[in-house]
Amino acid sequence: MTPDYSKLKYQKIIMGIDPGTNVMGYGVLGVNGRKAEVIVMGVIQLNRFESHYLRLARIFERVTGLVEQYLPDEMAIEAPFFGKNVQSMLKLGRAQGVAMAAALSRDIPITEYPPLNIKKAVTGNGQASKEQVANMLKHLLGIPEEKMPSMLDATDALAVALTHMYEADKPDLPKGPKSWKDFLAKNPDRLAPRRK
Amino acid sequence: MTPDYSKLKYQKIIMGIDPGTNVMGYGVLGVNGRKAEVIVMGVIQLNRFESHYLRLARIFERVTGLVEQYLPDEMAIEAPFFGKNVQSMLKLGRAQGVAMAAALSRDIPITEYPPLNIKKAVTGNGQASKEQVANMLKHLLGIPEEKMPSMLDATDALAVALTHMYEADKPDLPKGPKSWKDFLAKNPDRLAPRRK
Repeated sequence: MTPDYSKLKYQKIIMGIDPGTNVMGYGVLGVNGRKAEVIVMGVIQLNRFESHYLRLARIFERVTGLVEQYLPDEMAIEAPFFGKNVQSMLKLGRAQGVAMAAALSRDIPITEYPPLNIKKAVTGNGQASKEQVANMLKHLLGIPEEKMPSMLDATDALAVALTHMYEADKPDLPKGPKSWKDFLAKNPDRLAPRRK
Repeated sequence: MTPDYSKLKYQKIIMGIDPGTNVMGYGVLGVNGRKAEVIVMGVIQLNRFESHYLRLARIFERVTGLVEQYLPDEMAIEAPFFGKNVQSMLKLGRAQGVAMAAALSRDIPITEYPPLNIKKAVTGNGQASKEQVANMLKHLLGIPEEKMPSMLDATDALAVALTHMYEADKPDLPKGPKSWKDFLAKNPDRLAPRRK
């Protein structure tokens, strides 16, 4: 796949993911300073696949493709609220896991944001509806009406990417290791010898 | 990494995974007809990593390494019982998801088995203890005492691989698509056009 040339135009590229087991939304933002532009957004349709494994394989294939094409520097995902039953949480966890693997395999750091924080960051109101979030994104990112997606999973994904941009701008973030490579660089002794 | 040459000696290689968020067990079986041999077994220690992401990255890195080294034809994982709270199920799901991504990315079909079925397949008793399972594996697979692992997560992983070998031998398996590649081959029209 040919990488998108957006990489050259932005200081940072953030990929937002709104994970789900039926539909997974994604949105990619190009950032220069405090200015962000939409590079791409869309959804990965999963509900036509009956098997859970086919859904997982599809997520991995598509997210890997998006990562290879848009070369994000960071990934932000919407963290679920814990209202569902254990079986759906396990399935959701697996769906998130394969999406995260696509980022982890390229050493892209991942940050999670709860829905309330995302809504608050984007609209100022933690109780905002998905439509309000979408409208505010349209305004903030200057998205033309005809390019607004029909599925709100896509705008939700863009919202978590934008939230991440705002948060990354704050000076007081905790300074933990940001990725596996970063962790290894800081803790070379904590890597067990690999079996040959 | 240099692949293991076991591939040439066996008709089929099965990788068993006992997923967990603190310790992940793995066991690789080489199969010829109804005869199986242990190629490797061990554990991936995760509890020394504080961050959930580092654990996920570690799982992905290690399982990918094992897949590249031992070139399994099939993966079998122990399916969890649903007794935990939603938050631990989400974490477990993510851990499973990244391990499964390592297989899915190489189009290796995955099958799950519940603990009861594994115990029953290996010992004849669905209520067997982990120690009884380990002892039966030692006997069935001719594992020398000094090669028995100290951690039962490793033998649990071997047990699910052996269960898969027994199950694959049964003639009446449902004939669904076995992998993503198989699914696409059978349903070329169901693949949406990819964004360029």
